[in-house]
Amino acid sequence: MATKGNAVVGQSGGPTGVINQSLVGVINELHKYPNIDKILGAKHGVRGIINEEFISLRGLPGELLERVAQTPSSALGSTRDKPDEAYCQKIFKSFEKNNINYFFYIGGNDSADTARIISEMAAKASFPLNVYHVPKTIDNDLRTTDHCPGYGSAGRFVALALMGDDADNRSLKGVKIDVIMGRDAGWLTAASVLARTDETDGPHLIYVPEVDFSEDKFLADVDRVYTKLGRCVIAVSEGIKYKGGDKNTLVADKIVTGGEVDAHGNKQLSGTGALGDYLSGLVKAKLGKALQDKTGAKLRVRSDTFGYLQRSFPTIISETDAPEARLCGQKAVEYAMTAPNGLASGSVAMKRLSEDPYKIETFATALTNVARQTKSLDTSFVVNGCDINAEFIKYAKPLVGTLPRPGKLF
Amino acid sequence: MATKGNAVVGQSGGPTGVINQSLVGVINELHKYPNIDKILGAKHGVRGIINEEFISLRGLPGELLERVAQTPSSALGSTRDKPDEAYCQKIFKSFEKNNINYFFYIGGNDSADTARIISEMAAKASFPLNVYHVPKTIDNDLRTTDHCPGYGSAGRFVALALMGDDADNRSLKGVKIDVIMGRDAGWLTAASVLARTDETDGPHLIYVPEVDFSEDKFLADVDRVYTKLGRCVIAVSEGIKYKGGDKNTLVADKIVTGGEVDAHGNKQLSGTGALGDYLSGLVKAKLGKALQDKTGAKLRVRSDTFGYLQRSFPTIISETDAPEARLCGQKAVEYAMTAPNGLASGSVAMKRLSEDPYKIETFATALTNVARQTKSLDTSFVVNGCDINAEFIKYAKPLVGTLPRPGKLF
Repeated sequence: MATKGNAVVGQSGGPTGVINQSLVGVINELHKYPNIDKILGAKHGVRGIINEEFISLRGLPGELLERVAQTPSSALGSTRDKPDEAYCQKIFKSFEKNNINYFFYIGGNDSADTARIISEMAAKASFPLNVYHVPKTIDNDLRTTDHCPGYGSAGRFVALALMGDDADNRSLKGVKIDVIMGRDAGWLTAASVLARTDETDGPHLIYVPEVDFSEDKFLADVDRVYTKLGRCVIAVSEGIKYKGGDKNTLVADKIVTGGEVDAHGNKQLSGTGALGDYLSGLVKAKLGKALQDKTGAKLRVRSDTFGYLQRSFPTIISETDAPEARLCGQKAVEYAMTAPNGLASGSVAMKRLSEDPYKIETFATALTNVARQTKSLDTSFVVNGCDINAEFIKYAKPLVGTLPRPGKLF
Repeated sequence: MATKGNAVVGQSGGPTGVINQSLVGVINELHKYPNIDKILGAKHGVRGIINEEFISLRGLPGELLERVAQTPSSALGSTRDKPDEAYCQKIFKSFEKNNINYFFYIGGNDSADTARIISEMAAKASFPLNVYHVPKTIDNDLRTTDHCPGYGSAGRFVALALMGDDADNRSLKGVKIDVIMGRDAGWLTAASVLARTDETDGPHLIYVPEVDFSEDKFLADVDRVYTKLGRCVIAVSEGIKYKGGDKNTLVADKIVTGGEVDAHGNKQLSGTGALGDYLSGLVKAKLGKALQDKTGAKLRVRSDTFGYLQRSFPTIISETDAPEARLCGQKAVEYAMTAPNGLASGSVAMKRLSEDPYKIETFATALTNVARQTKSLDTSFVVNGCDINAEFIKYAKPLVGTLPRPGKLF
């Protein structure tokens, strides 16, 4: 018999295009269980819990909830707080005080770890608390699940952006560098490969953080493509790293702290154009003259940093991602009530059942299988350090949804 | 009686999301006239004409043409060449040699000027040549026409981007600066105002090139908004200028050549994040401590530069813009054949007939009414140097098409 009590739901970390789908999945499902009294939303994640900033989510109009579900970013507000033991104690105290017996936390691996710590505290104190983590991240770097809600829509943005940018570059030729989110995982950058519809399409070069970045190889790659096609479109992760000692060095860090002075004092990777500008400068300085001599045309080099657009752009939502995100929210509630395989607390994961037609099912997994460590892009997907193979395309294609087929006249 | 001969069509300047709609409008309409023999596309605009790089556009499958129409960027390739008298002589020679009596050029004010020079050369040489310019620019800065094909879709991208970015900023608070294309004209940056659905929505501050930029006023504006809302979303044109002497100075130029060193050697405005990074650094340096003291939270400042995405993103196309762009291409051919008011050469312009329902009609205008000078954003639309008024919203709203209404929980 499920415990009678209040439920709270929160959102954490970087927003996605479908994190509100999961939220609405949780809210709607909670209404089905008579043992649930209050349905509360914590404002700005765990921060709202310790500050007792809750809003009631019971009985909201369906029309509003559907609009919320279709709105990118976190409707409850998000937080970058990563609770330590002391912080988790405060969360637990708030739960005790507010009679909260069900907690749903939509977030990444850090959020899963917060959920784990709190559920262990509750068990130790014999306080009835079921905690379910709902996966969310554009980085697609959570363990156990086949893929993460939020990734498909961000991947769709990246693939469409590269498709348009390649058409732009075809029209006005040059070297174009597009910097894509992902500090440690290259999943999102790899999705740029889906923009291609034939062998002349960009991105012609793709660089992910999982493979050591070498400026010499990068320049040789650009030289090769540009000499062949008269243009070169490059997708590069913001998190590319040089090989070095125990810990590899972020290229972006070198720009900020190293010999190449950054005038603007930015150290973050997203929300700055520094890496793109650095790589553009490198191509101009090292290849500008040689390629001009070779092709007769002045080398035109540009960079764009996609920044926050790729995680929060309205209407660019994968038709696979949205219902899956909703389902994961709904299943979190179902699992918290039914404790499949004894998992009264856990995380919702997805398993791919078939490719054609693409089909998934969800399952409950222990929080320890998702918390803390992340899942890198498998480097077997990477070809020659600068391309992504057909196996990856097979994996990612159904996740981003149907893409348009560009029309070309030559 | 219309001259029997060949027709050539070309595309010029920065691509847009609908420039291929105009191209397909021209192609389809040309098929209706029995006096037209070859229908040729010039590869990369005037460059393709002088190099005699033509492709045949007659009898292409309708399915292909419809896909081309829906693909952003210039399917025939574009050029940045701005022909002088000698260059125009070469174009004219190519026309004589290839029996081209009809020329359709899709582009901005420079393309209209090229069309004007060539049509005057033909008249002087008594060579029968009808030249029609088809307006195209995301900058919306052409004279005579109510608005320009391409602007609505780029404005739609900007409005959606700000809508999503504002939701992102609401979720994880801070100062966010979005840099938008437009070296001289603020029309596109002004379209960011369409993202707002209530008085708390961003962009909270909007800066256009038509109003002198002052760093002191900018910082005071940010301080005021952040103090009130705990966050601030800013839309700023890449072309903002300081007041000064005879010629105002681009803020972006100061960053590159002035005291604040740019490490990357970029001087172009688009395809670099330098301006956004500079403004972020300014806010951090000048307001960081004061705002932290005032609000208790560390000031988070980020910038994104939308870059080429805003002109070439597939699927983000205004439902008004696409058919209007097609119509302008079609009408260019009709006008070249019928010479309304004696205008055997000219430019296609749009006149707004009514607001509700929104309705336009096209008309032919002399090339001199479009060539050379451009049309700035009317500064009567600008409020207090940092906002855009309701009159502008009335003007721009039908052009970008229907926008989603975000769902909010608090």
